Amino acid sequence: MPAAQRRIRIAVDVMGGDNGPEVIVRGAVEALRTIDGDFDILLVGDERVVWDIIARLKPERLPLFSVHAPEQIAMDEKAPRALRREKRGVSIVRCATLVGEGRADALVSAGNTGAVVTSSLLNLGRMPGIQRPAIGTTIPTPEGRCVMLDVGANADCKPMHLYQFAHMGRIFAQLVLEQENPRVGLLNIGEEETKGSALAQAAHKLLAADRERLNFVGNVEGRDIFAGRADVVVCDGFTGNVILKLAGGIANVGARMAAHEIKRSPLIRLGALLMKPALAGIKRRFDYEEYGGALLVGTRGISVICHGRSSPRAIRNAVRVALRAIRGDLEGTITRVLVEQGATSLPAAP
Amino acid sequence: MPAAQRRIRIAVDVMGGDNGPEVIVRGAVEALRTIDGDFDILLVGDERVVWDIIARLKPERLPLFSVHAPEQIAMDEKAPRALRREKRGVSIVRCATLVGEGRADALVSAGNTGAVVTSSLLNLGRMPGIQRPAIGTTIPTPEGRCVMLDVGANADCKPMHLYQFAHMGRIFAQLVLEQENPRVGLLNIGEEETKGSALAQAAHKLLAADRERLNFVGNVEGRDIFAGRADVVVCDGFTGNVILKLAGGIANVGARMAAHEIKRSPLIRLGALLMKPALAGIKRRFDYEEYGGALLVGTRGISVICHGRSSPRAIRNAVRVALRAIRGDLEGTITRVLVEQGATSLPAAP
Repeated sequence: MPAAQRRIRIAVDVMGGDNGPEVIVRGAVEALRTIDGDFDILLVGDERVVWDIIARLKPERLPLFSVHAPEQIAMDEKAPRALRREKRGVSIVRCATLVGEGRADALVSAGNTGAVVTSSLLNLGRMPGIQRPAIGTTIPTPEGRCVMLDVGANADCKPMHLYQFAHMGRIFAQLVLEQENPRVGLLNIGEEETKGSALAQAAHKLLAADRERLNFVGNVEGRDIFAGRADVVVCDGFTGNVILKLAGGIANVGARMAAHEIKRSPLIRLGALLMKPALAGIKRRFDYEEYGGALLVGTRGISVICHGRSSPRAIRNAVRVALRAIRGDLEGTITRVLVEQGATSLPAAP
Repeated sequence: MPAAQRRIRIAVDVMGGDNGPEVIVRGAVEALRTIDGDFDILLVGDERVVWDIIARLKPERLPLFSVHAPEQIAMDEKAPRALRREKRGVSIVRCATLVGEGRADALVSAGNTGAVVTSSLLNLGRMPGIQRPAIGTTIPTPEGRCVMLDVGANADCKPMHLYQFAHMGRIFAQLVLEQENPRVGLLNIGEEETKGSALAQAAHKLLAADRERLNFVGNVEGRDIFAGRADVVVCDGFTGNVILKLAGGIANVGARMAAHEIKRSPLIRLGALLMKPALAGIKRRFDYEEYGGALLVGTRGISVICHGRSSPRAIRNAVRVALRAIRGDLEGTITRVLVEQGATSLPAAP
């Protein structure tokens, strides 16, 4: 049943995540209560568990449906192996098949990232012309947020992958962050185009050859990412994943150091008490769990990947990311830009 | 003249750095005043400029000497090209030749990093068996500091390079941080040994095969670096440089966000005022400029690389790092461990 003929449906993987199914169901309920517009949520998991939770939560009448898929992939399981065979009883595989068969428009999962990527690849397939899908996420800048990709789908990348990530990241920023003409930057270790690894130098050439269409602003360095010098930061999935985890870690270490300093004087302790709301706000902005909405771009259909330790609020935010991607026709837009405008192949020499 | 027969001498590049020669000279004076032990400092730069500054500062009688080398490499100049020919008039080249000829025991420079690395390589050469020198620096952890390398000498690395970095990093941690048996971790994007890029997976095999001698604790992720899960974090120079710059950038963005929050309420403003000493302390710990002492390991002689915007305090700290490396016989220790114990070649299959 094509999406145009029915209400939007989002499949939520209830069995994924470190905090158990209840947190996920709570997030789904919160999403239906607080996000504008008509949409259904399919709770994909062990039916008995799901209805037990619903019975406890006693929500008002909401468009919540259950799809039975009681198995799950452990967070530390080697995902590709577990998913190689058809395993519709596994909740994340069921989510992906629902989207693949057109019975849902997007999936949201806080499960094993590798399992989400692999299930999406196997059941949805890549968009035509896209060599590698990437995980894109948003990170805080002083004035708002920017998109970074890839943050973990591809530990090893080729220059052409980064070039395609740039185009997909721009569309992500346009649809999800509602930026009109996002600036694209290449993560590198110097401003000059001749700096960096062999990968970064070759990717720079490709991006520079398509400078105008990409609104390419050149290399950005580590210090520029959180300073907002670009709206889309392109990098390989190894570097991106290290950075993402580092940012969360730094906020925690900062908090621990502050706790240590506070012990030194009652005046500092009073100051910390007064500053608490401000500091909590800053910590939250760095805490990527709050923005549980990393988007897998480059596969057909829409997959939103949440942090394993997602709160109900993070799940709710992930549903919102999925809705924006559906309503903005992420897949169609990427296909149009990349395939029809020829951006999946190497740009012509300038 | 071999070091044993005379006082320790440190060549300080007066012409490097973004803040002009005076900051460097001030740092040298502070080092002589505050660091224990007998040593000389050679101020390498434009003699007239140096003596003008000395005349203004009017320090007490200190073992400061001047070596004339009036030229400098611009911070954005492509270093290898500028240094390819013999250019003793360039201050950083002069520093390296002083060390190379045994007339100084170490050099300290806040100039163009590429220029320092290249001058050191050309004039000092690599240690026997070392494939690539690396830049090692220390970063804050809740309980102290840890060593990270490479942070910028090699944008592209091979597994064997990372294996050698691990051994050199351990010796760095022993001599400079005075840790007895430092734990070595490999920066990666997952804890399991099969995770990560092709480079990380292959490096893991080499490190694991030498687990006991290295005190190898396995993979560490982004969030673990600043949490102190390892005393030596090994990575390629691309990832390391991105992280180093990111850490400085995050502290600045955090400070800007705090400044923004403070405007929202007089109570928060009061809190910030009371917390100021604590927050300044935390910011300083993340601010790598304060620890102006990145060490180039793997070349003969000792080169300490400072941030371009180093303060006099950072230069003073860099001199202290140089002294520790000289007194601990960094070069001899690395040569003994790596060459004599056979750690420069691949470990035998387990």
